[in-house]
Amino acid sequence: MATINDNYLKLKAGYLFPEIARRVNAFADANPDANVIRLGIGDVTEPLPAACRAAMIQAVEDMGDRATFKGYGPEQGYAWLREAIATHDFQARGCDISADEIFVSDGSKCDCGNILDIFGSDNAIAVTDPVYPVYVDTNVMAGHTGDANEQGEYGGLVYLPITAENNFTAPLPTQKVDLIYLCFPNNPTGATASRDHLQAWVDYARAHGSIIFFDAAYEAFITDPSIPHSIFEIAGARECAIEFRSFSKNAGFTGTRCALTVVPKTLTGKAADGSDVELWKLWNRRQSTKFNGVSYIVQRGAEAVYSPDGQAQTRALIDFYMENARIIREQLTAAGLQVYGGTNAPYVWVKTPHGLSSWDFFDKLLHTCNVVGTPGSGFGAAGEGYFRISAFNSRANVEAAMTRITSTFRA
Amino acid sequence: MATINDNYLKLKAGYLFPEIARRVNAFADANPDANVIRLGIGDVTEPLPAACRAAMIQAVEDMGDRATFKGYGPEQGYAWLREAIATHDFQARGCDISADEIFVSDGSKCDCGNILDIFGSDNAIAVTDPVYPVYVDTNVMAGHTGDANEQGEYGGLVYLPITAENNFTAPLPTQKVDLIYLCFPNNPTGATASRDHLQAWVDYARAHGSIIFFDAAYEAFITDPSIPHSIFEIAGARECAIEFRSFSKNAGFTGTRCALTVVPKTLTGKAADGSDVELWKLWNRRQSTKFNGVSYIVQRGAEAVYSPDGQAQTRALIDFYMENARIIREQLTAAGLQVYGGTNAPYVWVKTPHGLSSWDFFDKLLHTCNVVGTPGSGFGAAGEGYFRISAFNSRANVEAAMTRITSTFRA
Repeated sequence: MATINDNYLKLKAGYLFPEIARRVNAFADANPDANVIRLGIGDVTEPLPAACRAAMIQAVEDMGDRATFKGYGPEQGYAWLREAIATHDFQARGCDISADEIFVSDGSKCDCGNILDIFGSDNAIAVTDPVYPVYVDTNVMAGHTGDANEQGEYGGLVYLPITAENNFTAPLPTQKVDLIYLCFPNNPTGATASRDHLQAWVDYARAHGSIIFFDAAYEAFITDPSIPHSIFEIAGARECAIEFRSFSKNAGFTGTRCALTVVPKTLTGKAADGSDVELWKLWNRRQSTKFNGVSYIVQRGAEAVYSPDGQAQTRALIDFYMENARIIREQLTAAGLQVYGGTNAPYVWVKTPHGLSSWDFFDKLLHTCNVVGTPGSGFGAAGEGYFRISAFNSRANVEAAMTRITSTFRA
Repeated sequence: MATINDNYLKLKAGYLFPEIARRVNAFADANPDANVIRLGIGDVTEPLPAACRAAMIQAVEDMGDRATFKGYGPEQGYAWLREAIATHDFQARGCDISADEIFVSDGSKCDCGNILDIFGSDNAIAVTDPVYPVYVDTNVMAGHTGDANEQGEYGGLVYLPITAENNFTAPLPTQKVDLIYLCFPNNPTGATASRDHLQAWVDYARAHGSIIFFDAAYEAFITDPSIPHSIFEIAGARECAIEFRSFSKNAGFTGTRCALTVVPKTLTGKAADGSDVELWKLWNRRQSTKFNGVSYIVQRGAEAVYSPDGQAQTRALIDFYMENARIIREQLTAAGLQVYGGTNAPYVWVKTPHGLSSWDFFDKLLHTCNVVGTPGSGFGAAGEGYFRISAFNSRANVEAAMTRITSTFRA
């Protein structure tokens, strides 16, 4: 009799975003004339850069001629894309990262989950609270946790609360942890980490033999030049960090699918016999065996992000969303709400007014303003009483949503 | 101290195809003037169908207008593609499979590996020998095996030898197994399974509560109308089978990346408390949490496979490769070699002459004929003494390779 992975039964009923979709659909069905504006899920809305489109059309045409046709590519990604990434995203910022330490993939969500494949099941795991739910759920699925309590906290995980009181940057854990998830600029709070804060984490990790999973999916939205874009800007990070990046948010690839993971060759983990094993080799074996590379067409599109036109067009996209973020911050502040983030990240983190719970505020905003956001409690227990507003939408929709909110909430 | 997944250390040195690439590259470096013809890895060589290219160019253009731009799509794939697959690949052949039982993915290799995520670690697992190495390696990585012996057989797996003596179709296991990997038309042997053979497997699985993983990646190459294309043509399969399919080999998508997995809603597995749990729900949760869907552009290309033009162009591609297979079979037979497969599959399975080992024949073919094939022993211990020749190449290359081989081996 085939048995199932019982760990799946520990998962809470639904992933956050499907639950939001369910409530929005129910509202829309009951109110078919309502013009619902979605500032919930962090999905881009603006056209793909012209440089990327031109490169992908050329790539499709390459596929039409047997002389330029591409079959299986390297599971790790084409060298020309890995080189472009290493040069522009890392070496240009002084990071000692080479092309063969970059693994191109079809998504950071996949990589964040799959990375656990190469680690043992006995590691102590730390996540911030609130946190991107995928980090937690993939650990639950892998059997690294106990059951969830009523607040949705899973036994066995070390939660590091991030709130307004600690400026949304987690204090170093007092106990020893082996795997640490950090996301800066932060999803969902929009907070950033200073160089000193990241250095403290790297020093902690090196002292304890821990590995930091650094999610830099939103690095392109940093406007403050003092804030690091990569963990590899920090001395010692090559000995303790893996970084996840994506083309989803900077170049609008959420529906096109391309991301990357950086695994330095200097990283090691402990085998059961006490020996040190190169994590690069394990990840390379994992990807070679369980993955077949990203579509050639999509990789050509990602490469074009690094062309002069692609850089200018991507910059314009980011500036567009960051202007949305500025409008959201200013309007919500004017409406008397307490807001955080939104200056180096496309997310504005809002303290719910009048002591409303996150889901109550979600329902109120949906029903009175027809605006969709994301309840902070969906990201973890410490997110209760907060709410995430995304800057990913058209200017007209952002302005309309803010007008509705300020007219409802203005004192 | 972060620990690693020690199961990775049980894996043999290299995945088969990288080892082939290493030997071919070494030969090519030493013999830069040699014109090496590659009939090894099962990678397509002919241009992508025009219908698919046109659809992908239109999809790229859709991405350039915010009215038609696509961000995150459904993790399971777009409904229009799932409907087309259900209609053409399953319902048209009398299979009771609905669109929502189809999960679109970026590759069958990924799905074959990832499917283990939702199963328990206490299942008894059966594979044929020889076998596609990914089935075995992903079980090793997941900790479902012991160490490998000198023949490369892992402790804890149930190997079902398939050889000329049993017509390359495994007899039903005498012990109880819970998860069974079947691949028909078979990679590497090119063998097919009759309706009666598959019915016996389905009956076995239903009697034992087992799940069959049915890999139908090569179904499009079936020419004999009596041979089933899908396990779901067999009565009772909805209660015991998951099927993997791919656009890689029929439509030339090895570098474009699109595949699908069929998980009937009627399938269940046992939880630790003895209850029955729907496998569809678990796989849906797995894909929603650890995957973000296939590129919109690629899905549009896959949809075009089902258009009248796409069907005709795909048929022509398959006919082209099958004519290659016919030439390979006839020429190798004329050279006095014993060959199998190649009539309903793009692979010809050759008995090595003069009692040569698989790797010795590989080296001999490489060095004397400058032709690359795949050593049968790379697919498992029972593949020793066999050799796989792939029909995926240009006509000119196939003919040149056969001329070289027949002039070397002809009696």
